[in-house]
Amino acid sequence: MPTRITISEAVRHEAETVEIAGWLYNIRKSGKIVFPLLRDGTGLMQCVAVKSALPEALFETIKNLTQESSIVVTGKIRADARAAGGFEMDVENLEVVQRVPESDPYPITPKEHGTEFLMDHRHLWLRSQRQHAIIRVRHAVIKAVRDYFDSHGFTLVDTPIFTPAACEGTTTLFEVNYFEDEKAYLTQSGQLYNEANAMAFGKVYCFGPTFRAEKSKTRRHLTEFWMVEPEMAYADLEEVKRVAEEMLLFITARVLETRREELKVLERDVAKLESVQSPFPRIGYDEAVKILQANGSEIQWGGDFGGTDETILTQQFDRPIMVDRFPSAIKAFYMAPDPDRPEVALGVDVLAPEGYGEIIGGGQRVHDPELLLRRIEEHQLPKEAFNWYLDLRKYGTVPHGGFGMGIERCVAWICGLEHIRETIAFPRMLYRLRP
Amino acid sequence: MPTRITISEAVRHEAETVEIAGWLYNIRKSGKIVFPLLRDGTGLMQCVAVKSALPEALFETIKNLTQESSIVVTGKIRADARAAGGFEMDVENLEVVQRVPESDPYPITPKEHGTEFLMDHRHLWLRSQRQHAIIRVRHAVIKAVRDYFDSHGFTLVDTPIFTPAACEGTTTLFEVNYFEDEKAYLTQSGQLYNEANAMAFGKVYCFGPTFRAEKSKTRRHLTEFWMVEPEMAYADLEEVKRVAEEMLLFITARVLETRREELKVLERDVAKLESVQSPFPRIGYDEAVKILQANGSEIQWGGDFGGTDETILTQQFDRPIMVDRFPSAIKAFYMAPDPDRPEVALGVDVLAPEGYGEIIGGGQRVHDPELLLRRIEEHQLPKEAFNWYLDLRKYGTVPHGGFGMGIERCVAWICGLEHIRETIAFPRMLYRLRP
Repeated sequence: MPTRITISEAVRHEAETVEIAGWLYNIRKSGKIVFPLLRDGTGLMQCVAVKSALPEALFETIKNLTQESSIVVTGKIRADARAAGGFEMDVENLEVVQRVPESDPYPITPKEHGTEFLMDHRHLWLRSQRQHAIIRVRHAVIKAVRDYFDSHGFTLVDTPIFTPAACEGTTTLFEVNYFEDEKAYLTQSGQLYNEANAMAFGKVYCFGPTFRAEKSKTRRHLTEFWMVEPEMAYADLEEVKRVAEEMLLFITARVLETRREELKVLERDVAKLESVQSPFPRIGYDEAVKILQANGSEIQWGGDFGGTDETILTQQFDRPIMVDRFPSAIKAFYMAPDPDRPEVALGVDVLAPEGYGEIIGGGQRVHDPELLLRRIEEHQLPKEAFNWYLDLRKYGTVPHGGFGMGIERCVAWICGLEHIRETIAFPRMLYRLRP
Repeated sequence: MPTRITISEAVRHEAETVEIAGWLYNIRKSGKIVFPLLRDGTGLMQCVAVKSALPEALFETIKNLTQESSIVVTGKIRADARAAGGFEMDVENLEVVQRVPESDPYPITPKEHGTEFLMDHRHLWLRSQRQHAIIRVRHAVIKAVRDYFDSHGFTLVDTPIFTPAACEGTTTLFEVNYFEDEKAYLTQSGQLYNEANAMAFGKVYCFGPTFRAEKSKTRRHLTEFWMVEPEMAYADLEEVKRVAEEMLLFITARVLETRREELKVLERDVAKLESVQSPFPRIGYDEAVKILQANGSEIQWGGDFGGTDETILTQQFDRPIMVDRFPSAIKAFYMAPDPDRPEVALGVDVLAPEGYGEIIGGGQRVHDPELLLRRIEEHQLPKEAFNWYLDLRKYGTVPHGGFGMGIERCVAWICGLEHIRETIAFPRMLYRLRP
């Protein structure tokens, strides 16, 4: 019995006869030779079936294979510099597990399909090389994020998905019936719980799905998206910025190191990722507003950036930029004021280059118990629901801060994608809950 | 300025004067010396403040410190074999960031508190050494799970939380209003989506929160819990069992390697974890029923195991056991039948030792399109909702299988806990949605 290997293992089996189980990705015919292109989830392998070397019935079977038929191919691995993965396989045998019939063929063909059609067939679309590459980059990004925090003294403390109160307003919350009498809301951010955890563990992070019932149908919005959120006790805004930059450098370096092939499939200009180096430009909100006005934006001091503003700002630079000290009025109630200028918050947004917009938002939190209580009242939040959060300021409060990064926006930028919907296996949007 | 370090870094700073920022965990007084016990989230450090070596006002401040006051201590690190972490710190200076007043003291004192009280103060309870140890073991378990799959050819493909249809029945689903007209359900398992992903990537896993609206108030149930689910194309039941065993061995070895101190805090008998070695006993359901009957259980062939049955079975062994080939009637519609005995399913449950019960459930899936359609009809599931799932059997179906492991049950077993509620930072249960 030949050894069963994956296509990614072929490099260690040159000149051996092995078995690979997968699906027919494509097939090319040239008279007495057919070239089935096999995929097994780890790569593509060009197979070579020569009529004169195979029993007639087997050759006919191979010649008539249909796209996405499941097959187990036995053959000898041969190095070939022209082949996609560097190897080809000379077919000695081929077992058909299931032949997809011509009468009901695989719906996604090499021709162009509309986005809605592909999204309706997302469970199959994931088999294509482009989607494959994106999901593999996503995996590398997630692993890099976790490796970064795990190796820098952070403890993973998962925050709850079901929450009794809203973190930032209630209009974009998904509501759940929690047994008979209660309402729960799906988390929008682990932020508040993270602060409790940071007071217990010093440096923590949470990483899970978060939910926003936003009615916006844009290329940057999902209703369900994954977010990583570190939080640090005894940390100020400068430390938050340092960690955000170091993490992004770690991620881009890791993707460049381990996912070159995938970036090639995506036709990503890797020079744009290679220029992501320290230090990231740091500019204040005041200066950012001036740059925007000089470039034709109608923004006034006090306003939040629109998508176009973010694009104008980032076009000036070849790497992510950090904008800090936004007006307190447009930031969350828990953002600490700058002691020298209380009208601005010790918060920072990190904007990705090439018009990808905000990927990180964070800053230093209010740690003074009285100010926090006043903020809760000013924002007309239900104080009772925040009693536990106020406890954190009563029992050993310390300066602290952190940030949140949306994984899908980060992946869209790194992959160079037009739309965020391809960055997750089964995207959920305003009009998309299926499959 | 002395270098700021964490307590876990003290080993590299012996005989140096450093600064540590944290909170007062406890304090012992002995005439002209006081011993503040400092915690910073990475460990505990006994500090030594000698009256004659310090300004009088400072010594008074230190003497009168209250529990959980936030402090920054400067002093010289000194090795001391009797100290908890192997080091003590001779105090040279101490800055009080916030002193918790006697009038409103930290609510969790060294005396015994009731569980409800502690659960209501979960945001503070996490600061105690026991909860600390559990969460750190949890982090190690999660990292081990991810490292195992990442290093064994699996691609992480996150499955959606919002699902339009139920995977296993509808009575235990949480329902969400998804914008105007739609209902969504919170996922109970990534299983079905995992199968689509396995056909695209060969070997995949998902790892995220899952939800069950079970009205049971037991020590094994949470409404929100984390689950890891691997799924493999071209895999049979035996392969599923092999991977489940290898993963569990990987996890227990990792925890023993990196979390000895925490297991000691938990007073865990590590010999019980050290005996988790290959091979795990593999027994069939038929045999399990006989063992149970011989030990006084009233179970009959065809019935599912109760908690007591699981305890009886696992008490016979010193490591996890694998029970396979349960009656198909009590298993999910997608479980493949044994071709030699169609009345039993090619499924497996892994039961943890010491009465911790089922931690893993999995098996081989139905890959025959006609049988799957028949099963969906027999279970009176809405066929229309499963069209995409049936597509996976139409376009290159292959034998495949996988399993799911609940992280909290695994952590409860490894830590030797009575109740699952301590295995997650903010547990969600039938009557518990706060803080």
